[in-house]
Amino acid sequence: MRDFSQDHRWLSINTATVRKQRGEDWPLLDILDACATRGIRAVSPWRDQVAAAGLQATAQRLKSHGLELSGYCRGGMFTYTDAASRQAVRDDNKRALDEACTLNAPCLVLVVGGLPGALAGKAAHRDIAGARAQVSEGIAALLDDARERRMPLAIEPLHPMYAADRACINTLEQALDVCDTLDPARSGALGVAVDLYHVWWDPKLHAQIERAGKERLLAFHVCDWLTPTTHLLEDRGMMGDGVIDIRRIRAAVEMQGFAGYSEVEIFSQGNWWQRDGGETLDICIERHCRCV
Amino acid sequence: MRDFSQDHRWLSINTATVRKQRGEDWPLLDILDACATRGIRAVSPWRDQVAAAGLQATAQRLKSHGLELSGYCRGGMFTYTDAASRQAVRDDNKRALDEACTLNAPCLVLVVGGLPGALAGKAAHRDIAGARAQVSEGIAALLDDARERRMPLAIEPLHPMYAADRACINTLEQALDVCDTLDPARSGALGVAVDLYHVWWDPKLHAQIERAGKERLLAFHVCDWLTPTTHLLEDRGMMGDGVIDIRRIRAAVEMQGFAGYSEVEIFSQGNWWQRDGGETLDICIERHCRCV
Repeated sequence: MRDFSQDHRWLSINTATVRKQRGEDWPLLDILDACATRGIRAVSPWRDQVAAAGLQATAQRLKSHGLELSGYCRGGMFTYTDAASRQAVRDDNKRALDEACTLNAPCLVLVVGGLPGALAGKAAHRDIAGARAQVSEGIAALLDDARERRMPLAIEPLHPMYAADRACINTLEQALDVCDTLDPARSGALGVAVDLYHVWWDPKLHAQIERAGKERLLAFHVCDWLTPTTHLLEDRGMMGDGVIDIRRIRAAVEMQGFAGYSEVEIFSQGNWWQRDGGETLDICIERHCRCV
Repeated sequence: MRDFSQDHRWLSINTATVRKQRGEDWPLLDILDACATRGIRAVSPWRDQVAAAGLQATAQRLKSHGLELSGYCRGGMFTYTDAASRQAVRDDNKRALDEACTLNAPCLVLVVGGLPGALAGKAAHRDIAGARAQVSEGIAALLDDARERRMPLAIEPLHPMYAADRACINTLEQALDVCDTLDPARSGALGVAVDLYHVWWDPKLHAQIERAGKERLLAFHVCDWLTPTTHLLEDRGMMGDGVIDIRRIRAAVEMQGFAGYSEVEIFSQGNWWQRDGGETLDICIERHCRCV
């Protein structure tokens, strides 16, 4: 297991962690500057942040800082109600792949979508099995586009509390079942993003990490689970402030050969988004060394 | 599959559904009266409500109304940090069993506990595997006491969002694994309480219901999952207001031979607890017929 205590060379910052400090958007290019200043070597930006900063400007700034990506957030949202929305999703995911290529991302992270309409509070139906079938079909189609571009797809199982509105792939086992169906050869084109916030609770977690193996472990995200958790989406904890045994799970992932970045992704309306962005980054670095 | 549309003979009310209306506790005996007045035939009371009303007074009122129990809420909370707390938990669970016998409950429902201290925001450790081992050990010990009293134990898997602080058994598969280990003969002494709020999202739900079979299916709880859900504990929805395909899951449970009550258990600070208790009960009846 790698020693993270002495430096932060394997820390990556998911840029949502500092996206809106004290109510104001922190522009992506400024975030990149702040990361580079602190010796952070990798980030994982969100598409809307990249769009606001400009794709080419983002690519240029990454290059000038020598910043790598640990992933690109995000594609997915495959569920649909009609042929037009299905096609729109596929087109949008192709654009996400192209952006990921431009930014030289190691993978496009997929949040697969839930019941269509549920995110807006108006689920079109209650057929979660049907939604899951659409997701598998959507990933299968996108995988063709991804292979052409040599851009791996990382399915991110989301916590079951997001099953209705954000992602109906909710366990690592379920994600790996999809991987094994669509990419039985374990080609490297399809794998998973293991975000501890989503999977830490799973009694089968360690068995499924072993099943995943190096070929499927494309990204590793950390934060912490607070007790109590006061909001379903925006109350994630800083590493060390919650109950996740982060180091034990990192050890399991590295035992399989994972040697990539540990990406910090924290949505925190009440705490970390209320601070100066630089302060939040500094604490990410300190906790990365001490608690990850 | 039973037809619920014409009457509510298979409706049970978990008394937490109307426990504190408009900020005031609704006394259990009054709840029982209100249920009986409406032709409701079964309830599932909570221990603290029974304690407040008095065990014998509760038993007497149930009898005078001819009200059955669909379960008794609840035993469990098996995780501990020292020998004294371990013994205290076992003693308390024995008392819960005795109360369940006095009230002629069909089963004692078990919410097994999470990381010790986490419910108070101070988890003693991060070893969820260790907590799970304590739970299995606690259920094994209690099962001896339960067999003596011929009182079945129903393990209730709780939604993964409660893994840290309330219950570290989080899927039906995991609960059934415990059942199969401790009661391989499927004697009827140990089974599960299937609460749709906790398990609806699970891609393995239907396979595990089939695995459970009639011998393990001891209780069936309904409510609904709202989008958005605004609070982790107290924002459950009334049947029909959310995204759970209740009827499809009830069909699966009944396919296995389950023929018991459909127990409504709704914690709703913002809506159903803000109404007159009688109104909430009336709507439970209407939704039971129309949506369950």
